[in-house]
Amino acid sequence: MIDFYFDFSSPYGYLAASQIDKLAGRFGRTVNWHPILLGAIFKHTGGQPLTQFAWKGDYALHDFARSADFYGIPFKMPTNFPVNAVAPSRAILVAKRESTDAMKRLALSLFKALYTQDRDIGQIEITLQVADESGFDPRALGAAMQTQEVKDELKQIVDRAVERKVFGSPFFFIDNEPFWGVDRLPQIEWFLNQSE
Amino acid sequence: MIDFYFDFSSPYGYLAASQIDKLAGRFGRTVNWHPILLGAIFKHTGGQPLTQFAWKGDYALHDFARSADFYGIPFKMPTNFPVNAVAPSRAILVAKRESTDAMKRLALSLFKALYTQDRDIGQIEITLQVADESGFDPRALGAAMQTQEVKDELKQIVDRAVERKVFGSPFFFIDNEPFWGVDRLPQIEWFLNQSE
Repeated sequence: MIDFYFDFSSPYGYLAASQIDKLAGRFGRTVNWHPILLGAIFKHTGGQPLTQFAWKGDYALHDFARSADFYGIPFKMPTNFPVNAVAPSRAILVAKRESTDAMKRLALSLFKALYTQDRDIGQIEITLQVADESGFDPRALGAAMQTQEVKDELKQIVDRAVERKVFGSPFFFIDNEPFWGVDRLPQIEWFLNQSE
Repeated sequence: MIDFYFDFSSPYGYLAASQIDKLAGRFGRTVNWHPILLGAIFKHTGGQPLTQFAWKGDYALHDFARSADFYGIPFKMPTNFPVNAVAPSRAILVAKRESTDAMKRLALSLFKALYTQDRDIGQIEITLQVADESGFDPRALGAAMQTQEVKDELKQIVDRAVERKVFGSPFFFIDNEPFWGVDRLPQIEWFLNQSE
């Protein structure tokens, strides 16, 4: 099992989401996706969104696009950034009740809407629209997203991430070995090779 | 030409130093090494040493060692860290007068002394001892390191790095394309492939 933590507001999370299942599959591993809210985590670590750092922020904007090219996937920086990841995170937790495949399918659709179509999935209506286009019932999904159960589930995932000292996105655990960043994919591959 | 900026106090700089000339050589490119002092740069960016961040610092200590394994090179975290990079930086600028090969040879020896033998190259005597073992005349080197010319040269390299918005180590430019981090080596390879 590989745990994959990501914030929808993380472009590197989007890049990782496009790669990790393919990579894990080559080693017969499944991936458990966990949506997190970095804002809540940064309260513990004092962290800040990457784009707010002097110099590093400008570099990051350039690197997001170049890294997408490197992986051969489309990318367009969203106009409204960072986005509030609560709505898409809750939406995929509802989709997970159907199946983990449904969850991943919706997550990838939401990532694509944000990072290739400049749609602000931070707004519930946009998240539900994307869900609708992806074959989910937006009315049922929207209602389930507002239940205390789903709200608590997201909170518990974030709390667990805090316990595991997840400080950024994407963040992976292979068993208990932590890897931070989409640029650790080659090391993850090397690690999985050694673990076989 | 590839520009390679590094701080001796950066473990990822050490890892990059072990790889970059080999990689560049496969594309017929030469590498120009530039020692920098991140402390001076952090005054402009508000940056901090990686190991001082909550959670990320502990992760980094683990990742330094694992990344060294990944590249197949020895690594032992120095007891005294971060080190003051002024002495080794000036020393390699003196060695550069002999040749760029001499500069790189001394830089690699200093990196190895720090990251495999736990020797504090921040101390001038240790830097000179390492230089001696590497075939340099420690007396002539030590005298040259204290000249205003060498002091100014290091300052100018740091100033130029600030102009180019180098905010971390290792940092590379291929022509004017910036790459930050040893984990960008695969992208550098991809970029060089495309540029051929």
